[in-house]
Amino acid sequence: MDMKATTVDCLETIRTTAPLVHNITNFVVMNPSANILLALGASPVMAHSRKEAADMAAMAGALVLNIGTLAEKWIEAMLLAAKAANQRGIPVILDPVGAGATSYRTRTVKHILDEVKISVIRGNASEVLSLAVDDVMTRGVDSSLSLSDEIVDAAGTIARQHGCIVAISGENDVITDGGRVFRVANGVPLMTRVTGLGCGLSAVVGAFCAAARHDLLTAAAAAFGFYGLCGELAFETSDRPGSFFVAFLDSLYTAGSAEIDERLKIE
Amino acid sequence: MDMKATTVDCLETIRTTAPLVHNITNFVVMNPSANILLALGASPVMAHSRKEAADMAAMAGALVLNIGTLAEKWIEAMLLAAKAANQRGIPVILDPVGAGATSYRTRTVKHILDEVKISVIRGNASEVLSLAVDDVMTRGVDSSLSLSDEIVDAAGTIARQHGCIVAISGENDVITDGGRVFRVANGVPLMTRVTGLGCGLSAVVGAFCAAARHDLLTAAAAAFGFYGLCGELAFETSDRPGSFFVAFLDSLYTAGSAEIDERLKIE
Amino acid sequence: MDMKATTVDCLETIRTTAPLVHNITNFVVMNPSANILLALGASPVMAHSRKEAADMAAMAGALVLNIGTLAEKWIEAMLLAAKAANQRGIPVILDPVGAGATSYRTRTVKHILDEVKISVIRGNASEVLSLAVDDVMTRGVDSSLSLSDEIVDAAGTIARQHGCIVAISGENDVITDGGRVFRVANGVPLMTRVTGLGCGLSAVVGAFCAAARHDLLTAAAAAFGFYGLCGELAFETSDRPGSFFVAFLDSLYTAGSAEIDERLKIE
Repeated sequence: MDMKATTVDCLETIRTTAPLVHNITNFVVMNPSANILLALGASPVMAHSRKEAADMAAMAGALVLNIGTLAEKWIEAMLLAAKAANQRGIPVILDPVGAGATSYRTRTVKHILDEVKISVIRGNASEVLSLAVDDVMTRGVDSSLSLSDEIVDAAGTIARQHGCIVAISGENDVITDGGRVFRVANGVPLMTRVTGLGCGLSAVVGAFCAAARHDLLTAAAAAFGFYGLCGELAFETSDRPGSFFVAFLDSLYTAGSAEIDERLKIE
Repeated sequence: MDMKATTVDCLETIRTTAPLVHNITNFVVMNPSANILLALGASPVMAHSRKEAADMAAMAGALVLNIGTLAEKWIEAMLLAAKAANQRGIPVILDPVGAGATSYRTRTVKHILDEVKISVIRGNASEVLSLAVDDVMTRGVDSSLSLSDEIVDAAGTIARQHGCIVAISGENDVITDGGRVFRVANGVPLMTRVTGLGCGLSAVVGAFCAAARHDLLTAAAAAFGFYGLCGELAFETSDRPGSFFVAFLDSLYTAGSAEIDERLKIE
Repeated sequence: MDMKATTVDCLETIRTTAPLVHNITNFVVMNPSANILLALGASPVMAHSRKEAADMAAMAGALVLNIGTLAEKWIEAMLLAAKAANQRGIPVILDPVGAGATSYRTRTVKHILDEVKISVIRGNASEVLSLAVDDVMTRGVDSSLSLSDEIVDAAGTIARQHGCIVAISGENDVITDGGRVFRVANGVPLMTRVTGLGCGLSAVVGAFCAAARHDLLTAAAAAFGFYGLCGELAFETSDRPGSFFVAFLDSLYTAGSAEIDERLKIE
């Protein structure tokens, strides 16, 4: 499969159709997530009331759930929205922010996975692997771990267990459905020094999945690659976090087939 | 009426008196709304608890209600704040974000309009016209419509029905009280690719109304014109959304009578 | 005491250990507070659910409470988190945003001070002095007051009354434990034209206190000095609020011992 062509296709579809991406996400990243989606060419909407979450999700091209600043009523809204999305075959992305850090978050993510069908789980290694079966957990999992074979194996186990795609961000990213495995080498470390760039990637995965519903695995991998190369482009403008983020938004808006052809590193 | 002089007067009043603008607004735009008001020279405050909403509104120069990330308790706080503002003759701006998209939002906006006196409704065409009488609705209303005579007529009907000013953002803006009609030709399309710039305009209309309570119609038109020309100035610095927004905040802070004299397009 | 050496030490500790700073803060500033902490080198987390606030605080190097967009359930979460922090000797910073403006806020701050042990109160003069005994209040307190001897005296009284450090931002800052008094002359007026820079300073005080728990008074003074000099550095890049804030984040990331040696003004 030619991932460069796939990525260009997804991007052009997003820019010509501006898919609606419904986010139920945390307070810290609502603003940058919306700006990231707008710069990319998608149409963001944030709506968390239980009175409209299902209505909004039913209209969307993708639904993105993010547990970063969790509260009870929001979980109910997430489930209502996800059920509406599931009924219509709309992809649902789950970002398990901080899973593993408190038992409340870990329990909540498992509850969501039990109640609704998730298309893609997108997080860092420690978040995602906190969802793994116990014998994996006890080996000790840390977000600072490199994406060893052991982690790739655990990601595949989670993917098969939940019938979803597992996408782990790190120095190198891994995206797998439990069968095929994509590895993405794009991105720069400074992306971890701007708040919301991980959550923003989950939103962008949503936009790419909305644009290519027929193959969510390649769509998710393409999202990771494009997002990372926009970080590389921004880093050429600035190596400092304030001006880097400004340049990153600019890159999401301007980068296209030439940049993808030159820089995309997915295998 | 000399709209350039009016706009300069409003701006100077804002910059010398720093009117308090009380916002009960959505999570996505709280931060940019506050920064937009500060850059302009106003004093923003955000407060949504039912325990203080009325107290805060009573101290303000204007109250701005925005339903972007709606929830039940917030609606109650909006009504308490608006009633306190109504009692004191403080202008109340309503931004019906997403009205027409879900029935919950449309119902909520109509409920607010029934319960309290709104001074200015500020939204895009589809949001505002979702409030119109049914026979207008069934003709089909879309935010991509240009501001045809039909839309201007519908805006006037809504304005007369609610005894308020209706201000519609679009490629050309229309501001009417159901009698007089102002058309504003300032602004650039890139403003739609930064989240919160519509909501920020509602906040700026609040600041201008606080500065010129004797004529809210011209104050609202002046706000639209000044806001749009700051967008034009920013676009001369950057045609990319990240750096455009930074330049836009800078323009709100620096633009003055020279820029107004040269660029304001209100008729 | 050599405050320059202290400031360099704190900063290096932050950058090498990345202390976790748990914020229960207002919606307007969550994003810039997280970005300010990340640029500085600390690890921010925001968590306000009563179901995890205590767990999260127990893991943190410092807890920062900010009442900027207050609501009942958040106050309960603040108390749960602060009690968990108190049990473990984790510093707790309180930012009494808007205290004195509404009775709800003033009452809430006094309730927090009654229920839990606060390490540092950080606010402007009118906010902090609204907490003073009644005979101080009746003399009239305004945020526009310069930090007169009278205000320094009142700050000392509050510090002794609550057994905490009182840190007041203004044209010149005052930080006192009721005995020693530090005065900080760093900073630029444009910092008041960007939303959340006061709240961001409270978060940075949290990071410095996490890095130097043995002497919170000097840690707080060092935080004020470093934060102000980063404002000065940013102002050399831009005198306009949008680009100033971008440059400010960049300065928090890049400024070090050379800038501290050249610019720090604490006595």
